[in-house]
Amino acid sequence: MAVAYSHYLSSDNNPPIPSPASVIPTQDELKKFAAHKAVEFVKSGMIIGLGSGSTAIHAVNRIGELLRQGKLHNIIGIPTSKITHERALSLEIPISDLDSHPIIDLAIDGADEVDPYLNLVKGRGGCLLREKMVEMACNKFIVIVDESKLVKYLGGSGLGFPVEIVKFCWKFTANKLELLFKEAGCVSKLRMCENGEAFVTDNGNFIIDLYLDKDIGDLKVASDKILRIAGVVEHGLFLDLATTVIVAGECGITVKNKLELEG
Amino acid sequence: MAVAYSHYLSSDNNPPIPSPASVIPTQDELKKFAAHKAVEFVKSGMIIGLGSGSTAIHAVNRIGELLRQGKLHNIIGIPTSKITHERALSLEIPISDLDSHPIIDLAIDGADEVDPYLNLVKGRGGCLLREKMVEMACNKFIVIVDESKLVKYLGGSGLGFPVEIVKFCWKFTANKLELLFKEAGCVSKLRMCENGEAFVTDNGNFIIDLYLDKDIGDLKVASDKILRIAGVVEHGLFLDLATTVIVAGECGITVKNKLELEG
Repeated sequence: MAVAYSHYLSSDNNPPIPSPASVIPTQDELKKFAAHKAVEFVKSGMIIGLGSGSTAIHAVNRIGELLRQGKLHNIIGIPTSKITHERALSLEIPISDLDSHPIIDLAIDGADEVDPYLNLVKGRGGCLLREKMVEMACNKFIVIVDESKLVKYLGGSGLGFPVEIVKFCWKFTANKLELLFKEAGCVSKLRMCENGEAFVTDNGNFIIDLYLDKDIGDLKVASDKILRIAGVVEHGLFLDLATTVIVAGECGITVKNKLELEG
Repeated sequence: MAVAYSHYLSSDNNPPIPSPASVIPTQDELKKFAAHKAVEFVKSGMIIGLGSGSTAIHAVNRIGELLRQGKLHNIIGIPTSKITHERALSLEIPISDLDSHPIIDLAIDGADEVDPYLNLVKGRGGCLLREKMVEMACNKFIVIVDESKLVKYLGGSGLGFPVEIVKFCWKFTANKLELLFKEAGCVSKLRMCENGEAFVTDNGNFIIDLYLDKDIGDLKVASDKILRIAGVVEHGLFLDLATTVIVAGECGITVKNKLELEG
């Protein structure tokens, strides 16, 4: 059940919302609400996975703010992208990496889609590989989204899900991906930058976005089929990784826990 | 059963061996015997996958020779590495790629290990990803080896099998791989160049070599487990891909066909 912002605002948790609860919040404010709620789970001394993208950046900013205020201390951040790395540095959040800290207490990150079982599509920002490496190493992974990200099935937003592939013969690999999900009406597109050049990931690879007409069925089977294609580096299906999803909607904040779903 | 070189030499197939059959051939001569035998399967008009490494290069040279002699024509070669690409160019073999020719009639390539079911370890030369992309697109894949490459189980040569991984947090990924095969006594090592720097693949990634004390069990299960690790790009287990293996040994040439094994 959603907790109304009026309630949330009246708590002791440093309400992040400048506007009165009666005003309809913007999408960016919703993202901020979810992010600040998630940061309530961060405790001093934790190793924290720092997500990437427009929602996660609110969480990174909030962690920086609490460190500056002395309300958090002894945090180590593990960034999931070069951009987040730079942002954490500028906020003076101590940072490290998976090589030095292979076990992470808690990661906070956004998602592009969340299905009813808390499976995710991620990677619209292009950082899916590093995000997946960090989030597979977490004891707890909190996903923060506004309610527009909730879907009945992954791919259901119509925005495509990303697959990171090597540049070598990328058309060949894109065709193989399209064939794999032919029955779901799959169309593949090379992700482009605004300047008309192909988008290149932090790891020097391309992204293929797969657009689907319908559900692709068993997601774990789909995941293995994608990974078996030589030329694929990683995909944006994040299955069984999120332990909590915090959804900010016009009516308030909803917290969904994986364990409750399974129980 | 092996066909003795004396028999092989007496055939009409342009004997490749300058030394008399009574002399014990060198390892490089054995590689050449296998390569020349494989090239007998190349017909004019074919799209040919051109392998990489010290054995495959003999096949590339032989194809170039037959084209020059006018005994083959209308061949298109699909190289599996930058080195083979350069070699084919220098031999004036017309070349193309998977984007233009997604279906290949026949590939010829070496292997580092061949098990009794014709599963392979490849990638000691570092070209496993491109080799796998090409060889998964083949109607027929002939593997050429000298008899030192035959093993009871993959990993059994003691030389390690390679996994291509992204550079980002490579130690973390190497540890995950080692843990995966802990029960087989797995030890992982970053592949180095002679100049003391880490080896970098044609795709800009690192190679981790996994050394095993014993059999890792079901190879398809192992393959999926490796591919599910975020950070892994591809591995050197080539399962169910070879249709024919040509083995050159001191006593002659043996041709093993996948279909005969299954029949």
